[in-house]
Amino acid sequence: MPARILIVDDVPANVRLLEAKLAAEYFEVLTAENGPGALAVAASEAPDLILLDVMMPGMDGFEVARRLKEDPKTSHIPIVMVTALSDTSDRVRGLDAGADDFLSKPLNDVALFARVRSLTRLKVMMDELRLRHAASGRLDITEKTIKSEADAEPGHILLVECHDLRAESVIKYLGDAGHVVERAATGEDANAKLAEAVPDLIIVNLHLDDEDGLRLCSHFRTQDATRHVPILLVISADDFQELAKGLDLGVTDYLIRPFDRNELLARTRTQIRRRRYHDQLRTLLDNSVSMAYTDALTGIYNRRYMNAHLDRQVMEIGDTKKSVSVIMFDLDHFKDVNDKHGHAAGDDVLKEVAQRAESNIRDFDMVVRYGGEEFVVVMPNTAIDVAATVAERLRASFENEPFTVVEGGVPLDITASMGVASTCDPMETADSLLRRADDALYAAKRAGRNRVCTAASPADQTSNDVSAVGR
Amino acid sequence: MPARILIVDDVPANVRLLEAKLAAEYFEVLTAENGPGALAVAASEAPDLILLDVMMPGMDGFEVARRLKEDPKTSHIPIVMVTALSDTSDRVRGLDAGADDFLSKPLNDVALFARVRSLTRLKVMMDELRLRHAASGRLDITEKTIKSEADAEPGHILLVECHDLRAESVIKYLGDAGHVVERAATGEDANAKLAEAVPDLIIVNLHLDDEDGLRLCSHFRTQDATRHVPILLVISADDFQELAKGLDLGVTDYLIRPFDRNELLARTRTQIRRRRYHDQLRTLLDNSVSMAYTDALTGIYNRRYMNAHLDRQVMEIGDTKKSVSVIMFDLDHFKDVNDKHGHAAGDDVLKEVAQRAESNIRDFDMVVRYGGEEFVVVMPNTAIDVAATVAERLRASFENEPFTVVEGGVPLDITASMGVASTCDPMETADSLLRRADDALYAAKRAGRNRVCTAASPADQTSNDVSAVGR
Repeated sequence: MPARILIVDDVPANVRLLEAKLAAEYFEVLTAENGPGALAVAASEAPDLILLDVMMPGMDGFEVARRLKEDPKTSHIPIVMVTALSDTSDRVRGLDAGADDFLSKPLNDVALFARVRSLTRLKVMMDELRLRHAASGRLDITEKTIKSEADAEPGHILLVECHDLRAESVIKYLGDAGHVVERAATGEDANAKLAEAVPDLIIVNLHLDDEDGLRLCSHFRTQDATRHVPILLVISADDFQELAKGLDLGVTDYLIRPFDRNELLARTRTQIRRRRYHDQLRTLLDNSVSMAYTDALTGIYNRRYMNAHLDRQVMEIGDTKKSVSVIMFDLDHFKDVNDKHGHAAGDDVLKEVAQRAESNIRDFDMVVRYGGEEFVVVMPNTAIDVAATVAERLRASFENEPFTVVEGGVPLDITASMGVASTCDPMETADSLLRRADDALYAAKRAGRNRVCTAASPADQTSNDVSAVGR
Repeated sequence: MPARILIVDDVPANVRLLEAKLAAEYFEVLTAENGPGALAVAASEAPDLILLDVMMPGMDGFEVARRLKEDPKTSHIPIVMVTALSDTSDRVRGLDAGADDFLSKPLNDVALFARVRSLTRLKVMMDELRLRHAASGRLDITEKTIKSEADAEPGHILLVECHDLRAESVIKYLGDAGHVVERAATGEDANAKLAEAVPDLIIVNLHLDDEDGLRLCSHFRTQDATRHVPILLVISADDFQELAKGLDLGVTDYLIRPFDRNELLARTRTQIRRRRYHDQLRTLLDNSVSMAYTDALTGIYNRRYMNAHLDRQVMEIGDTKKSVSVIMFDLDHFKDVNDKHGHAAGDDVLKEVAQRAESNIRDFDMVVRYGGEEFVVVMPNTAIDVAATVAERLRASFENEPFTVVEGGVPLDITASMGVASTCDPMETADSLLRRADDALYAAKRAGRNRVCTAASPADQTSNDVSAVGR
């Protein structure tokens, strides 16, 4: 996974050494020699990762990290702090400032490259999600909203740990911070628990009894439910080869035993926050996609969806040789409802109309809100006489039972006028089919409303060739 | 990148050997010993990749590949054909049957694993896109539509090749098949050409004069414009280490020199088709996201967007201490337009209303289609008297110039009634603000239409406390 990496260090020799190592692995390198320089390059060049020295004259690394995370332009860039400091309190301070990792010099190359690759991979995935949101021009609103939510609560954690004593201390630390921890003593146990509920984070001991912790991590990554759940791997100081392999397999972070309580909590917090952020970006995107094709008020399909769908239905006549029919209907004098009873009552009526329509059609038909008080029913493989029968049933279902509205509470009499049209010609366009249904609908209106008219087929059609059924 | 891999081979010893190799690299392995078994496992287990033997009794590998690609449930799973056959015509036949690669036995492990990893990575990316579409319940329609389009045309190709003779033959082969090929002789030249236009495929010679082809590929992967453009790397038979590195860096396919014309064309076709498929999934997703927040008819924001936006505007009063105002307006007697002139004329009027509204507001105001013929203007940092002035200007802009409609062509007189409300209370909800504007709008209707009424602030408000301005 190639990437552009910004190295920030005030010692030129350090920069050159790291630059040479990264370039040999085909990374592209940018450099800055102090905090303000780093902020400028990060904002203008949008690197994929920042390797940030802590001890610099003027603005130190903690402050640089804090500012990078505050600026929406740079807040999504992963930061690895690199330093000679090896005090736990420094590590925690770095993680709390927003760093994704805190590596001590001298750097272990295997761990460094695996870390860089793994963080870059996560960023690319997140960039894809962010780009899709950017398309709506509302990424900024989205990020503001979900960041405040992602920070909010403690999480659900699954701990895979075979040693009772070790498990107990982790459960206590995390529990004291408000997290809810489930423990699994074996991989089998873990899989059983995951089948019941998906946690916000999985913590795995690399050295499980009779089991390879990495194989378990790998398994989690191949399952749909746990593909994106962060994994925190607990290793010993000499497990760097395994760690590198683990990061390649999709482990998201690690802790070296013996670890400090605050470091455990800081890394847990970071992972849970990121998980929630990703999940919400995904959920919002999924919602957008379904919202694009549904009507906000009634929840049924909208005109956009029907346009795509109806074109395809008509084209498929070529293969199936079966007619496609449509019913277009419009509520009679609906304006009066809004004017006399208010828009809220009008909205209630529209929702009820959608419900009655849905319960009066067959499973393979589709009801669409076409415009204000106008609806369309699309009926594949349906001859016009069957469609006219369905339309008549639907018309009667409106007429026979008054509509209840929440505000006011007076039951309202609502009727609809309906036009039915049908085609068995794959060359007829969806537009033309709808226009014929609309003409029939107008004929129904002119004939006194609350009735169904059917359009003649285009071949037979003269100027106003529609015939009334029902009423 | 962990993955579940299906091995299909009728010789148990071959299966066991490959299974052991893959398991050692932490892949999960499924197996099938013949074609029908492979189809069943692929459909039920949804593996991430299929390693498919060609020579099997009964249904051979070509047929299995063809069927897997035909079934929408399995068509997105990458296939690598593995065989003792080494004839070019077999390779081309495999690629044409839908295989992503065709490897000859004995397998080079480095190349095999790099290939498996690279195809798995691509699949995970595509799965993410497909999942987002699946959320709308219309993945099947989407895939049918874009697959037929992706197959359609030849592509634009950038060839990075320093040798004139070699370049000429590739250009001729691809040109004869209808592709448009640009040639760059150096990396610098390639970057210059990419800055002008992004091709559907980049073909790179690994051994460029004085340049490392891999570094160039890596660079393409770090640039936004070329991040997702497929790269076909041209290598020699002994370049397997470089190939493995290249696949890790994001190279999507390769050709071993000397290569056959038909293999070049088959691999080119596969890559361009996949590129178009991905691009269209992305574009449709981007469109969905913006469609979710815009009104299909007028192109302005919809009610959904306003709900999210207005809540935030009102909340921000806490920080800014500045009022938020809204104008709610409704076209007078609009039903008559639809009834007398048809829905098409009504639609033309609504579009024109949206345009006039947009040109009569300030840059930081927002016009929203709230419902049928009802619109809202959201005005941040705006006092009620300013909002009332804007409303009056807008009302006049409707009254003073008749609306032109396409069908019929008779200019129509359209007027609107407007209600204005304002709040400087961060605790007032967006709903309550809109309700007050709606009340003022009804007052304007009752007072004779084509006029602006303003709502009193909630503190002063008695039952029907609205005052008229304009007309």
